[in-house]
Amino acid sequence: MPKPLYILNGPNLNLLGQREPEIYGHQTLADIEAACEATANAAGHSLVFKQSNIEGEIVDHIQEAGREGAAIIINPAAYTHTSVAIHDALKAVDLPVIEIHLSQPAKRESFRQISYVGMAATGTISGFGANSYQLGLQAAINLLDT
Amino acid sequence: MPKPLYILNGPNLNLLGQREPEIYGHQTLADIEAACEATANAAGHSLVFKQSNIEGEIVDHIQEAGREGAAIIINPAAYTHTSVAIHDALKAVDLPVIEIHLSQPAKRESFRQISYVGMAATGTISGFGANSYQLGLQAAINLLDT
Amino acid sequence: MPKPLYILNGPNLNLLGQREPEIYGHQTLADIEAACEATANAAGHSLVFKQSNIEGEIVDHIQEAGREGAAIIINPAAYTHTSVAIHDALKAVDLPVIEIHLSQPAKRESFRQISYVGMAATGTISGFGANSYQLGLQAAINLLDT
Amino acid sequence: MPKPLYILNGPNLNLLGQREPEIYGHQTLADIEAACEATANAAGHSLVFKQSNIEGEIVDHIQEAGREGAAIIINPAAYTHTSVAIHDALKAVDLPVIEIHLSQPAKRESFRQISYVGMAATGTISGFGANSYQLGLQAAINLLDT
Amino acid sequence: MPKPLYILNGPNLNLLGQREPEIYGHQTLADIEAACEATANAAGHSLVFKQSNIEGEIVDHIQEAGREGAAIIINPAAYTHTSVAIHDALKAVDLPVIEIHLSQPAKRESFRQISYVGMAATGTISGFGANSYQLGLQAAINLLDT
Amino acid sequence: MPKPLYILNGPNLNLLGQREPEIYGHQTLADIEAACEATANAAGHSLVFKQSNIEGEIVDHIQEAGREGAAIIINPAAYTHTSVAIHDALKAVDLPVIEIHLSQPAKRESFRQISYVGMAATGTISGFGANSYQLGLQAAINLLDT
Amino acid sequence: MPKPLYILNGPNLNLLGQREPEIYGHQTLADIEAACEATANAAGHSLVFKQSNIEGEIVDHIQEAGREGAAIIINPAAYTHTSVAIHDALKAVDLPVIEIHLSQPAKRESFRQISYVGMAATGTISGFGANSYQLGLQAAINLLDT
Amino acid sequence: MPKPLYILNGPNLNLLGQREPEIYGHQTLADIEAACEATANAAGHSLVFKQSNIEGEIVDHIQEAGREGAAIIINPAAYTHTSVAIHDALKAVDLPVIEIHLSQPAKRESFRQISYVGMAATGTISGFGANSYQLGLQAAINLLDT
Amino acid sequence: MPKPLYILNGPNLNLLGQREPEIYGHQTLADIEAACEATANAAGHSLVFKQSNIEGEIVDHIQEAGREGAAIIINPAAYTHTSVAIHDALKAVDLPVIEIHLSQPAKRESFRQISYVGMAATGTISGFGANSYQLGLQAAINLLDT
Amino acid sequence: MPKPLYILNGPNLNLLGQREPEIYGHQTLADIEAACEATANAAGHSLVFKQSNIEGEIVDHIQEAGREGAAIIINPAAYTHTSVAIHDALKAVDLPVIEIHLSQPAKRESFRQISYVGMAATGTISGFGANSYQLGLQAAINLLDT
Amino acid sequence: MPKPLYILNGPNLNLLGQREPEIYGHQTLADIEAACEATANAAGHSLVFKQSNIEGEIVDHIQEAGREGAAIIINPAAYTHTSVAIHDALKAVDLPVIEIHLSQPAKRESFRQISYVGMAATGTISGFGANSYQLGLQAAINLLDT
Amino acid sequence: MPKPLYILNGPNLNLLGQREPEIYGHQTLADIEAACEATANAAGHSLVFKQSNIEGEIVDHIQEAGREGAAIIINPAAYTHTSVAIHDALKAVDLPVIEIHLSQPAKRESFRQISYVGMAATGTISGFGANSYQLGLQAAINLLDT
Repeated sequence: MPKPLYILNGPNLNLLGQREPEIYGHQTLADIEAACEATANAAGHSLVFKQSNIEGEIVDHIQEAGREGAAIIINPAAYTHTSVAIHDALKAVDLPVIEIHLSQPAKRESFRQISYVGMAATGTISGFGANSYQLGLQAAINLLDT
Repeated sequence: MPKPLYILNGPNLNLLGQREPEIYGHQTLADIEAACEATANAAGHSLVFKQSNIEGEIVDHIQEAGREGAAIIINPAAYTHTSVAIHDALKAVDLPVIEIHLSQPAKRESFRQISYVGMAATGTISGFGANSYQLGLQAAINLLDT
Repeated sequence: MPKPLYILNGPNLNLLGQREPEIYGHQTLADIEAACEATANAAGHSLVFKQSNIEGEIVDHIQEAGREGAAIIINPAAYTHTSVAIHDALKAVDLPVIEIHLSQPAKRESFRQISYVGMAATGTISGFGANSYQLGLQAAINLLDT
Repeated sequence: MPKPLYILNGPNLNLLGQREPEIYGHQTLADIEAACEATANAAGHSLVFKQSNIEGEIVDHIQEAGREGAAIIINPAAYTHTSVAIHDALKAVDLPVIEIHLSQPAKRESFRQISYVGMAATGTISGFGANSYQLGLQAAINLLDT
Repeated sequence: MPKPLYILNGPNLNLLGQREPEIYGHQTLADIEAACEATANAAGHSLVFKQSNIEGEIVDHIQEAGREGAAIIINPAAYTHTSVAIHDALKAVDLPVIEIHLSQPAKRESFRQISYVGMAATGTISGFGANSYQLGLQAAINLLDT
Repeated sequence: MPKPLYILNGPNLNLLGQREPEIYGHQTLADIEAACEATANAAGHSLVFKQSNIEGEIVDHIQEAGREGAAIIINPAAYTHTSVAIHDALKAVDLPVIEIHLSQPAKRESFRQISYVGMAATGTISGFGANSYQLGLQAAINLLDT
Repeated sequence: MPKPLYILNGPNLNLLGQREPEIYGHQTLADIEAACEATANAAGHSLVFKQSNIEGEIVDHIQEAGREGAAIIINPAAYTHTSVAIHDALKAVDLPVIEIHLSQPAKRESFRQISYVGMAATGTISGFGANSYQLGLQAAINLLDT
Repeated sequence: MPKPLYILNGPNLNLLGQREPEIYGHQTLADIEAACEATANAAGHSLVFKQSNIEGEIVDHIQEAGREGAAIIINPAAYTHTSVAIHDALKAVDLPVIEIHLSQPAKRESFRQISYVGMAATGTISGFGANSYQLGLQAAINLLDT
Repeated sequence: MPKPLYILNGPNLNLLGQREPEIYGHQTLADIEAACEATANAAGHSLVFKQSNIEGEIVDHIQEAGREGAAIIINPAAYTHTSVAIHDALKAVDLPVIEIHLSQPAKRESFRQISYVGMAATGTISGFGANSYQLGLQAAINLLDT
Repeated sequence: MPKPLYILNGPNLNLLGQREPEIYGHQTLADIEAACEATANAAGHSLVFKQSNIEGEIVDHIQEAGREGAAIIINPAAYTHTSVAIHDALKAVDLPVIEIHLSQPAKRESFRQISYVGMAATGTISGFGANSYQLGLQAAINLLDT
Repeated sequence: MPKPLYILNGPNLNLLGQREPEIYGHQTLADIEAACEATANAAGHSLVFKQSNIEGEIVDHIQEAGREGAAIIINPAAYTHTSVAIHDALKAVDLPVIEIHLSQPAKRESFRQISYVGMAATGTISGFGANSYQLGLQAAINLLDT
Repeated sequence: MPKPLYILNGPNLNLLGQREPEIYGHQTLADIEAACEATANAAGHSLVFKQSNIEGEIVDHIQEAGREGAAIIINPAAYTHTSVAIHDALKAVDLPVIEIHLSQPAKRESFRQISYVGMAATGTISGFGANSYQLGLQAAINLLDT
């Protein structure tokens, strides 16, 4: 049986759907997880889905994925712009890495214009709300299938 | 019948598949157009597919899409980083705009780290080679369907 | 008979009046041309009025004005901030050059804070909407009359 | 009777016409005031015309205009580039504000490339010598008449 | 009897309460003075309260406080970001200096991100509207009492 | 009974009073907690007081305050200057946020001149040593009472 | 018979010899073309000589040279400093590329200090007026002969 | 008996020897620990050796060393470049601090050119692979013996 | 009789000798004036000596010197680094201008590394305490005598 | 007999041909000197050819050329990017100056993007290996002949 | 017999021990040389030890080491931060290069934060006073032995 | 007998009087030396006067002055802006240091706006041509006499 896909989530994403739904939509992170699980399973893949507010735990998750997973889809949230540690972890694992964002950082504050994760990722998908997860999952599956 | 999706391509993309295939793959732009057409049609959409090396012609294409299209998927290539004119054209049209790139700019030269198109786009997809077109098309269709 | 005044317009200005009228007003570029023609004629001047989305065509227009015109009033729109080619063309012609803008760039994005055209112009008028054209025309006529 | 137009002048403009006439022309500030008064009166407006070398007095003049005037035409001279206080005063008054300059700052030293006044102004006119006052006056009258 | 506390106010603060009350509140500077006087007196301190739009007069006020006062609470307004002269005056006096602001500069324009006054102050309080004065007064009294 | 006030403390503040007392004073963090508790209780408020060296745990504390608290007083210490995650957490909660500092960052190293927390806070108080906590508490109580 | 050498010229070079001859000399672009043709023929090479004011047409010319030429000598004029599209086109062709300039950019405005073309060229020759063309031609011939 | 030497390791160093051995060598972190222990013991010192992926836990380790250790040898890995919290912790302890790196940051990406740890360290050793640990240990022992 | 030499003094210099004498010496500004008067008279020159804390008054003093003086020796203090108005006034007068400083700005804060006055001065003398005045006076006399 | 041409060479060029021949070619500096001598003699010129690793000796060489030579061809190597002294020496001599480089600096490290020599040179030739010397010699001879 | 180790010293290091011994210690450069010789001999290596104040002579020393030495330990002192010539010389030799510093540049002026030598060195050791030489020697011996 | 004053001169100053006399005057460096000797002798001081084009020799001169001189007057010419080695040498000697310049660097190129020598000097005198030497000598004598 193939190794699972890892979807990793960064700080404050546990609040999704509960706060500012007019901005981030009404879907909770659990809703997104369920939708991703359905998509992955339909394509013959299993899923590991994690969230942490702690930079170093996300490094742990990436290292775990490096040992046990087939690909990483990561929404690093705020750590996108500040974490060289996550950058280094992603470079150390030998997997496809898909960076995803709910919003479009290019339209936001200047401190969101650098992405340490993007420099270590195969590709990036941003700006499509919860659909960024579906597109990222699709991208990962395509990369594994070819 | 619904308005067509516009896929617009910037400078040097007419060379795709003929040069440096080890980097950009063996698919020509015509191959990509055919694959996109198949996907769009399967989803009940028609497609307009254009390429130009001239910045101002791409502005014309965007204005045409603003009048006659349902969404814009644009691979602005080199103009990504230098064209305020394309930025302004995209802001002037009232359509979903999907920015796509074959490669991952975050891994390339410093002068490719600014995207005037990204600041005017709904979302961005980069780094997946020819599959960036398929993902961008899927993103556009999802946006139109919801 | 005196040489005509040239009013040159940059990218996306052909959309004036049709889109976002709450921002840019209800006048089309044709309305502005008609009003300018009336003003010029009343002052004993003829007018050549052109628009292009293509940077190099605007360079052509400037060269034509250099051969056949008495003064240039130019609204370079997005090329204001990116075109050294237009800057060089304006420096090469031996005419009064009036830079005009509908909006006030000083209040807009940081990438609109540089004007290559302003460095090559006799003077600049910005922020008065369609009236910037009338003021620019008046400034040109004054310069020619003294 | 309508409220008067305020024309405010910054530091060193009291020297106009007396020094470096080959650069700044032979008109004194009194000459300019007289010409502006004539133009304003012809258009049915009265004028208040002031000059000060002291930043805070110019703030006072702006506040006075805010209470008693209909529009402000301001040539802030050197304070253009250094005065946040004048910027804040202009933002605090609820009037049209026209920034004018005798010369074209875009052609001058790098420290003249920022305009705190421009960020708070309705529009800007620069580079036309004493005629910048006439054009600024015309712009203000147009704004009040529409 | 102890030396008085000096509360010094910079440019445009004389407009408080009269303009844009939805932003700056309905309290005038006289209201704030009265409230501060009450608080100071209740704590056994007298108050000197001044405002000026002129940078050099504020330097004079600081020098006077240096000779005759016990502490300085200063709302430098726009001069916060541009006045090395006020910085030098504050460094020259041997008193506690409390910098206060009605608004939160960290949320405003980039040119408000430097504070020459903050570099010369004991401490800073910002963002609490008129209550910044009360908190600044309290901070000064605490510093004098310990 | 009203929701409690949250006082959150960042890295290395657990060392307070034990090290470099000539700089940071002889009060320990427990002393400060006791003094704050007394002040809060006297004003009819309860207090939750936490410290962590881990950025992500502080994000957790902010989210907990968002669910169960009335206001946040936060001394983010070193994370002030590096944590977009804490910035995002503070923006996500719908509470008054008071940023406090023992020292005056404006007098320190250049890398302490940016505050991601200040951009997300209602107001800031810095430079008053342990008294910054008392002033911050007072500011929060004032905001809740009005 | 060997493939021809391509000499490509950017914006405003069509004005050569007609304007500002005291700066750019009395030779027209046609004169330069004739002189280059003579030199090339003498060395057993044929020449294709083109000029355009339009960035995208120059991209077309480079692509044509990539298919049909032996080497490119390019005077990109103003596009030197702004065109990533020309940079990308030059990188895509597998030919020697010689960048030439009439003037010495190192002595000119700061915005002429970056050369996107230089980053993609085999070598650069600048500052020798019309003789830069002869030297560039000689350099190309040398590269082809070894 | 003397206090032990602390060797602290930052994020991703737990992967040493397992991944990219051609770059980082075949030694695991456990191998390095054993070699360091041998060296330290031979010099009459004991060793505490820790690794964490979590910035705040490294702050904890530094504080523990401050209470119970004689010197700190720290390989902060990615946190070198982003952690003011580790900087502050190192400044707060009154011990010799030796910063070590396996690689030579001066040869790597621009975001690795700042070291917050170096600013708080007695000395720095970089570029010698696993031998950087031995040299750092030797440096610490020398500092304690003199 | 020859026109007098003007010695102009900027903000806070009225405090000289009274405060921080260990830094700035025990001489008051009156002492310096007396010493300069003696030196000037001995060389057959009269002196006008002025001080102001107000930028605009210093502009007035410079304009007065332009009408009635032979040379300007100016210690602009804090306005050195912020006043374009003083720069413009000095450029407008047709006199030798000697910039002097008591301290050596090159050893002080980064915001003291720009001198708008130096850009408009014949020469600069800094770092010699009160003797900078004597050297500046000597320099001015030399310039007038040759 | 005409004055000789000076070819001056900067630091490390004495190593040419001996090290890294796959990069810099197999020609030694003596080979290049011989080839240049042949070319110069054929054109009726004599040659002085010097190399030094010491910046100040190169200044001496330039001064000697200023007294005794007809033109300078200089490969300043590393001093290109750091030597204002060589810049000043070149500006002080009244000769044609040709800057040459073996490699193409525009493709190398960012610290090689500034050329103090280029700012003082008539023209620049770079990127053609040893042939840069021949082209530079040709350029100098052309300048002398016209 | 093995080639000797080269220890090269930059400007002002000849003053060691004679000046500011409280900062740089009482050891002279001769003392350091003797101690290094002892260590090297004990490890079966001979030593060449040189100092020069002249940048170009240090380039000579490096070239000599490249021909006749086994490794380079270099304390470039002030040239660390300004010499591209030394950088290029170090890159041209095929030896281990150890950069050493007595002090810790990361704690010093901003102009000491760039090291051209570090970019060309195998590794760097800084901050340990005279012991930096011993550690550097040890590092070189280790590199040669493995 | 007192130790002599050292006047040190940097690169290209040996050309004084011979070239560009309309800019630098007709005095040669020997003329200046003679005039300085006269002045020094009249004040009871002897003089050592040196010039070198080599940075490291100027370091030697400064070290010699540190051993045998009473004060240093230095015109570092181009090394002003690039030499950290001269900066370090001046910091290492315990003498008054007077930096002098013939011209006014504040009016020249941007790369002349940093002075490493000024950061290490007691004071600076610039802009007075050959008279800068006389004023610098006078400043040194004053410092020694008090």
